[in-house]
Amino acid sequence: MTLPSSSSVVTVGAGLFADALRAQAVDVHEVAWHPPADESDARALARVSADPRRATANAEAAARMLATGARLVDVRPAGEVLGLGREDFLHAGPPIDWARASGPMRGALLGAVLLEGLADDAGAAEALLASGSGYTLDPCHHHRAVGPMAGVVTASMWVFELEDPATGARAACTLNEGLGKVLRYGAYGPEVLDRLRWMSAVLGPALQSAVRRAGGVDVTAIIAQMLQMGDEGHNRNRAGTSLFLRAVVPDLVESGLPASDVAAVVRFVNSNDHFFLNLTMPACKLSCDAARGLPGSTVVTAMARNGTDFGLQVSGTGDRWFTAPAEVPDGLYLGAYGPDDANPDIGDSAITETGGIGGFALAAAPAIVAFVGGTVDDALGTTRRMYEITLAENPAYQIPVLGFRGTPTAIDVTRVLRTGVLPQITTGIAGRVAGTGQVGAGLVLPPQACFSAALSALAESVPGLP
Amino acid sequence: MTLPSSSSVVTVGAGLFADALRAQAVDVHEVAWHPPADESDARALARVSADPRRATANAEAAARMLATGARLVDVRPAGEVLGLGREDFLHAGPPIDWARASGPMRGALLGAVLLEGLADDAGAAEALLASGSGYTLDPCHHHRAVGPMAGVVTASMWVFELEDPATGARAACTLNEGLGKVLRYGAYGPEVLDRLRWMSAVLGPALQSAVRRAGGVDVTAIIAQMLQMGDEGHNRNRAGTSLFLRAVVPDLVESGLPASDVAAVVRFVNSNDHFFLNLTMPACKLSCDAARGLPGSTVVTAMARNGTDFGLQVSGTGDRWFTAPAEVPDGLYLGAYGPDDANPDIGDSAITETGGIGGFALAAAPAIVAFVGGTVDDALGTTRRMYEITLAENPAYQIPVLGFRGTPTAIDVTRVLRTGVLPQITTGIAGRVAGTGQVGAGLVLPPQACFSAALSALAESVPGLP
Repeated sequence: MTLPSSSSVVTVGAGLFADALRAQAVDVHEVAWHPPADESDARALARVSADPRRATANAEAAARMLATGARLVDVRPAGEVLGLGREDFLHAGPPIDWARASGPMRGALLGAVLLEGLADDAGAAEALLASGSGYTLDPCHHHRAVGPMAGVVTASMWVFELEDPATGARAACTLNEGLGKVLRYGAYGPEVLDRLRWMSAVLGPALQSAVRRAGGVDVTAIIAQMLQMGDEGHNRNRAGTSLFLRAVVPDLVESGLPASDVAAVVRFVNSNDHFFLNLTMPACKLSCDAARGLPGSTVVTAMARNGTDFGLQVSGTGDRWFTAPAEVPDGLYLGAYGPDDANPDIGDSAITETGGIGGFALAAAPAIVAFVGGTVDDALGTTRRMYEITLAENPAYQIPVLGFRGTPTAIDVTRVLRTGVLPQITTGIAGRVAGTGQVGAGLVLPPQACFSAALSALAESVPGLP
Repeated sequence: MTLPSSSSVVTVGAGLFADALRAQAVDVHEVAWHPPADESDARALARVSADPRRATANAEAAARMLATGARLVDVRPAGEVLGLGREDFLHAGPPIDWARASGPMRGALLGAVLLEGLADDAGAAEALLASGSGYTLDPCHHHRAVGPMAGVVTASMWVFELEDPATGARAACTLNEGLGKVLRYGAYGPEVLDRLRWMSAVLGPALQSAVRRAGGVDVTAIIAQMLQMGDEGHNRNRAGTSLFLRAVVPDLVESGLPASDVAAVVRFVNSNDHFFLNLTMPACKLSCDAARGLPGSTVVTAMARNGTDFGLQVSGTGDRWFTAPAEVPDGLYLGAYGPDDANPDIGDSAITETGGIGGFALAAAPAIVAFVGGTVDDALGTTRRMYEITLAENPAYQIPVLGFRGTPTAIDVTRVLRTGVLPQITTGIAGRVAGTGQVGAGLVLPPQACFSAALSALAESVPGLP
């Protein structure tokens, strides 16, 4: 082929052709486009598509997700709710050990050891953790729990306990600590531990009194409302936090606690518009757990990151994790921090996207672009794109600006690989050095490799095929 | 002109031509289109456009509106704040007397007479009011106050007192009573009066303690936030009400009041998502009042309805009212109520649109269409249309879905008449029979005649022209 010297060439897909043209000094415009699947994915897709169980199993998975409600029924210590001893630590994401743990995960674990009194200082705490013995370390997801960012949960921390009224299934999540230097972002200084102690001594018991007096709080109803009030339930929770306060304050006032404690509790929640995130997360966990373990289903039941690996779980493959290195989010940074300060993606909070809100409901929260970056059109486009990779629309969670369309729910691994559209996650960004805290917030995608690995496992599980 | 028998004719504008064709059995399709101005308007427009003061006066009016902040500085009895005696009654809209008052206005006045103890029963109250003596009746707007719906204010009712921090100017509005059978919608039964007495005995003093302890509440900041949380500040105030509660609850809890009173106050506000309307209204009143009385300015400073007449005030014509019969809103009805039960448009709440929110910020509140009717596209289109008749965009009040564009602010009478675009007002609908209460909510337009009358007066005021 001979090109006239004035040609420009538009190339799509494999960069090799573009590189070859550039080497010949041809003006090349590469168009961003991802092939829906590589050859191995294509073979697995064909096999999974032929699985006779798939359609029914996926319909059942989506139906169960939509049918799940979430009610906050109690607030109790994690030790009691999750059966943790002082030396048992839970963490966000797929399984990891100290050796592979990132800075913020290490920082949070150091704080946890100090909080539970297993060591007197950071040096001793680090020695204990590095020894690999004298404690257990397990994903929250293995205990019907979820934790934002590092997601470290210990016995003395209090947790929200949510229940699906239809099935009695439960899920738990810690109470949100606030912003800046906090344990979940890997900070573990004295002010972090003092705050955690106050949360266990005052905040948890106060919320327990209020929630019990109120006879529980309908978290599903608040999520439905917050989506009509500019929140997406992951990185914007201002309306959710406001509505939660409205729901508990009257009973909190009448709980018999000293007015100074009641006021301190309200001021603490008031100072942190992300407080309600720790309720959207377990609500979505309940919904996703309802879809677990359906043979043949290609529906995603968990996306979670430990700061080193991104992990995926799929209904048809049960509790197996498919992992790949976590990406660094793209976002806006606080103060003088920049991308070099950022740890890779971390936290169980992508359960919100797995449950159909968060990044999937970005169109409901156009104001969020001031916090995570991008434009309002991007926000609207993101939700529209998520309908391409999901099986259902949640009639309980409507997005007014899209004509009250339900949020895109039940991510289908085969749709992700066919379209090349990856789930959009909104996220906080932790400093990569232990002790730093939050450095920003932004947008991140899962590694496609997790989806390919899950698809391959699903393909192997198809019965009666050679 | 001869038309072939198979013709249809499309007509625009004056109906006379269409009527003449119809009389000749021609198939006529009339297209809804309003000419920007009739001949008299056109002459006045030309004259006002030549006013050498206009550009500067309008720039000054808009600048003053945008520069006005609103801080809730106190909560006190109306008698104290507005200098009202027991027999002094304020009402919504332009001036009116008992003889011309609509059902809901009469109902609210009957309740006011009973509340203030000027009569023992409704019959005696009606006799007093019909006598025309022994009491005064004056628009709220004449006393730096505003009132939603019937807007009746009496000495014993407590009011929010707002201040513009820059100028010290003040505006007042009663506390919102809640939904259904309430005085402002013309109900005056014992439960209405009991609630008003509780509001004066408990709610008002409790909010006074909280607001004073808190050192005031920044209402402008809450309005800015609510517009990013799905409220437009007239018929949707859920976020505003939530943020207001967050602002006052800690100090309310620490006020030393009995926990049962504090809980009752929070539950009362909680039960009524319109509570914050009575704060957006005086905030907008402050803003509009700042633009009053600038010779040559064609900026609207008040739109208000008394249930019989719609009234308009314009900066360049000072405190003069331009009135025309109020329209019946088009909307959604509660329960078994329908359009036949509806009173014409009523209330000072159109001060929100005059101030650039409410119907002008409809794009910020797509979820409102479930309450007032219409579609989400209508809501977005309405705000876009309002930019055609306003002079400024308020940088403090941004609409995320429009790319954070400021709300359309400072209605220009000449733009209204040039474009034929009337200001869009969202509104509650009162039952036309006294005592009924609210029957629905919807959308309404001002009569164009008010704008024509104002324009004519502005034209007469232009100096140095024949």
